[in-house]
Amino acid sequence: MLGLMQEWPLLCHKILDHAALFHGGRAVVSRSVEGPIHRTDYRAIRGRALQVAKRLEKDGIGLGDRVATMAWNTGRHLEAWYGILGIGAVYHTLNPRLFSEQIIWIMNDAEDRFLFVDLTFVGLIEAIADKVPSLEKVIILTDRDHMPQTTLANAVAFEDWIAETDQDFAWKEFDERTAAGMCYTSGTTGNPKGVVYSHRSNVLHAMASVQPDMLNLSSRDRMMPVVPLFHANGWSTAFSCPMVGCGMVMPGAGMDGASIHQLLSEERVTVTAAVPTVWLMLLQHLEKTGDTLPDLERVIIGGSACPRSITQAFQETYGVEVIHAWGMTEMSPLGSMCTIKPEYQDLSGEAKLDLQAKQGHPPFTVEMKVTNDENEDLPWDGKTFGRLKVRGPAISASYYKGRGSEQFDGEDWFDTGDVAHIDPHGYMEITDRAKDVIKSGGEWISTIELENLAVGHEDVAEAAVIGIHHPKWDERPLLVIVCKEGCNPSKDAILDFLRGKVAKWWMPDDVAFVDEIPHTATGKIQKMDLREQFKDYSFPGT
Amino acid sequence: MLGLMQEWPLLCHKILDHAALFHGGRAVVSRSVEGPIHRTDYRAIRGRALQVAKRLEKDGIGLGDRVATMAWNTGRHLEAWYGILGIGAVYHTLNPRLFSEQIIWIMNDAEDRFLFVDLTFVGLIEAIADKVPSLEKVIILTDRDHMPQTTLANAVAFEDWIAETDQDFAWKEFDERTAAGMCYTSGTTGNPKGVVYSHRSNVLHAMASVQPDMLNLSSRDRMMPVVPLFHANGWSTAFSCPMVGCGMVMPGAGMDGASIHQLLSEERVTVTAAVPTVWLMLLQHLEKTGDTLPDLERVIIGGSACPRSITQAFQETYGVEVIHAWGMTEMSPLGSMCTIKPEYQDLSGEAKLDLQAKQGHPPFTVEMKVTNDENEDLPWDGKTFGRLKVRGPAISASYYKGRGSEQFDGEDWFDTGDVAHIDPHGYMEITDRAKDVIKSGGEWISTIELENLAVGHEDVAEAAVIGIHHPKWDERPLLVIVCKEGCNPSKDAILDFLRGKVAKWWMPDDVAFVDEIPHTATGKIQKMDLREQFKDYSFPGT
Repeated sequence: MLGLMQEWPLLCHKILDHAALFHGGRAVVSRSVEGPIHRTDYRAIRGRALQVAKRLEKDGIGLGDRVATMAWNTGRHLEAWYGILGIGAVYHTLNPRLFSEQIIWIMNDAEDRFLFVDLTFVGLIEAIADKVPSLEKVIILTDRDHMPQTTLANAVAFEDWIAETDQDFAWKEFDERTAAGMCYTSGTTGNPKGVVYSHRSNVLHAMASVQPDMLNLSSRDRMMPVVPLFHANGWSTAFSCPMVGCGMVMPGAGMDGASIHQLLSEERVTVTAAVPTVWLMLLQHLEKTGDTLPDLERVIIGGSACPRSITQAFQETYGVEVIHAWGMTEMSPLGSMCTIKPEYQDLSGEAKLDLQAKQGHPPFTVEMKVTNDENEDLPWDGKTFGRLKVRGPAISASYYKGRGSEQFDGEDWFDTGDVAHIDPHGYMEITDRAKDVIKSGGEWISTIELENLAVGHEDVAEAAVIGIHHPKWDERPLLVIVCKEGCNPSKDAILDFLRGKVAKWWMPDDVAFVDEIPHTATGKIQKMDLREQFKDYSFPGT
Repeated sequence: MLGLMQEWPLLCHKILDHAALFHGGRAVVSRSVEGPIHRTDYRAIRGRALQVAKRLEKDGIGLGDRVATMAWNTGRHLEAWYGILGIGAVYHTLNPRLFSEQIIWIMNDAEDRFLFVDLTFVGLIEAIADKVPSLEKVIILTDRDHMPQTTLANAVAFEDWIAETDQDFAWKEFDERTAAGMCYTSGTTGNPKGVVYSHRSNVLHAMASVQPDMLNLSSRDRMMPVVPLFHANGWSTAFSCPMVGCGMVMPGAGMDGASIHQLLSEERVTVTAAVPTVWLMLLQHLEKTGDTLPDLERVIIGGSACPRSITQAFQETYGVEVIHAWGMTEMSPLGSMCTIKPEYQDLSGEAKLDLQAKQGHPPFTVEMKVTNDENEDLPWDGKTFGRLKVRGPAISASYYKGRGSEQFDGEDWFDTGDVAHIDPHGYMEITDRAKDVIKSGGEWISTIELENLAVGHEDVAEAAVIGIHHPKWDERPLLVIVCKEGCNPSKDAILDFLRGKVAKWWMPDDVAFVDEIPHTATGKIQKMDLREQFKDYSFPGT
């Protein structure tokens, strides 16, 4: 027996329809790539998105065609997204920070037919366009006055291009499982893998993410997504903000502390979201200028673990609540947020900061478990860690063209590649990447926990822990240290410092001092390179 | 091209799974029908719901079977709902306030096989059971000690019945469009019509309803649904509260002011929902006792238009925010809520009360329009009214067994039977029932607006407006008045009072004085009876 409710497919463009009708005048403010601040609203954005859709269709783009965007967060970028997905084509966000070879590889893998690109990146695209044979047209997100000289064939100014048509157009209707968007995730090994979002997954994800315990977005909020739309589905802000009529303040290319602060302050932003690096720059700006954040109520911090000092500065100096978030490109991206449940409502000081350092708890629609090597569930005691696996309607079932199938098990759980524990109230904390965790005599040792402890020693500037082969225990931890300038601690001093703070069998078997630890472009420790560096090392006496 | 996201059907029991895992210890407190306050939590409720499911399956209940409940809001009633829907059977809520003949008709129409019933209603069921041949078993929601003497064959105490099995059971998986629940809507004419909710519609509805601009439910809230689960799908609280881990405080049979206040106060309820009558009783209790509402943050008022005096008393005397809500059994039920958008954030005093008297704006997933008799869209100017039509994934596409098909048009819009206007910011206000609106010379006159004006006259206790046949204009308004005791105004005095406050052609053609205006059981004016009473009336001079 089926229910007798209406067929009403969950389609992304219905979100913009809702915003235009019920929150039509709500401001969407952008720092334009050309320079000036540009103001529009949801009603106007919908009209222009319809124009984009009509124009794309006239150019022969339709259901399932991939259309790339390489652009900052602006109103025009939003119009491009909705115009693309509103005819069943697929927005494919390109990260301009990748190496050109990766961008070429990704565009060829996706077979992008059109590209919307910001002025900033025209040179980048000129250099690679002839290596992407599928690319038919490049729409530069500007007007005629700002069109650059370009070697690109078939390049056109966005404003000219849409001016050739009008807004008299109806969105297409199709199955809600139709692809809406694509974003490639660049693993540390192998080629990037394409994640393909559906209309259904984007809509459900946005509905889950606006809840009071998650982004807590209302029509009275003004959200500044500093996180770019090309990063992990733009953290869903392109859908969650219009869904509830929350105003949007788009920072364009201005990611420095001063530019961010200017918009936060002039547009009276109430909530904002970005990676820790952005917040570090903002805090440095505030310290230098003495500026404050009177309107800002909360910052969402994700992308990598948030340093405690950032949380503390926001909360104690500026009166802004920090909410740690965790997600993955494969999760649309929201996995969990560290909002405070009633069981922890009375925490303060260090205990509250300890809690806020966790990745938090998921909304309904995200299932989680931690498992051991035998894929058995582990207890939620806040200390037993295992592989973190997730399941839900906005979580990848597979990658584009079937790549990376080892991350999916038969039951549809997605293996995040993280190692984590979950506490009795459902707060998850990541303790390591699965590929970094050390397996000693069948038990796991968290390298991140050891590193965090080691940097507490006054002479230590940076610490990394890697597993080294051991004839008896399989692997044992080696602690690699960069000392602070002018400091010269002994191995024993370091080990003595750790002793008593961790289980005896977690104690590193040796300490190695180095001048530098290798990092990725985003500042994370590059453990693969470090392991390579120590590949001929063996523990004393083995 | 389809997205590559997980198949994860939207099933109601996943909501309870989420609550049990991530908010397992959150309290669900009930005033039991036996008397004492009973405390449990989501983890325990899920366990016992699994027990119900396993026991039902053992008794031969399965996919598509209708299982009725006639019960107050308690933890046991929740366990019954989830136990029923978790095996793909259909919870069918019965309203004990209906006439016995209606209950018999409804149970036979639904062909209910089992019934969960509270002690309060055993006598009612004993009197009708032999007229419902499909009914195989009656589970009385109590334990052995409280089992009454009963003439019911196959009656069993809930606790004994589930004790025969355990919690080692897995929910069934099925298509998300599978029927989950049923609720009959009793129109003023004809037989009741069955609304059939699907798992998908219930889940989407709950996701839409917890948003900050709607119920605004978080894990830190404690919600008391005074509105019974048998009224319009229980306003979705059985799904929206566990979805976000909001605590629940269930009033059981104690609907009087003192009982409600006791729970509000002892359980520190933050949000509660009911029809205006309940709030009137509470306010009277507070006035009498001098009690206050220190923990309560907001009351959701729906079911019928909320008198201004109630809103004022809550907000001004007790510091509790009032949120007007509108919905229908056919809408799962949420249609709109009157939360404040930024455009109206600076309103205060009478202007704010005027806004709060509106039915409000819908969440994403509810589409609205107002149309004229030719089904053409009318402008959103806050004054042009027409038939209110709605569309969405949690709105009826048809009634059980295809009844009432005239309410559904070809485009899937559901005709609410209400007449309303919508303002430029998307606030909807109901001005009449479609069957009551007066059509004068092709134009519509709102009877509710005239009535609201007329009761502003100091001598008028109650007013009703009905359309009377007119040879030239088709219909013209007749104003029917009940005077306050000892008052005796003239027709002209009443008409003079209205003059200038409404368009000239809206002015009633006559005033009739009566001792009493007929009401429905729930206190609404029974216009059908009033029209019957005046069926031989004709305007002077026609």
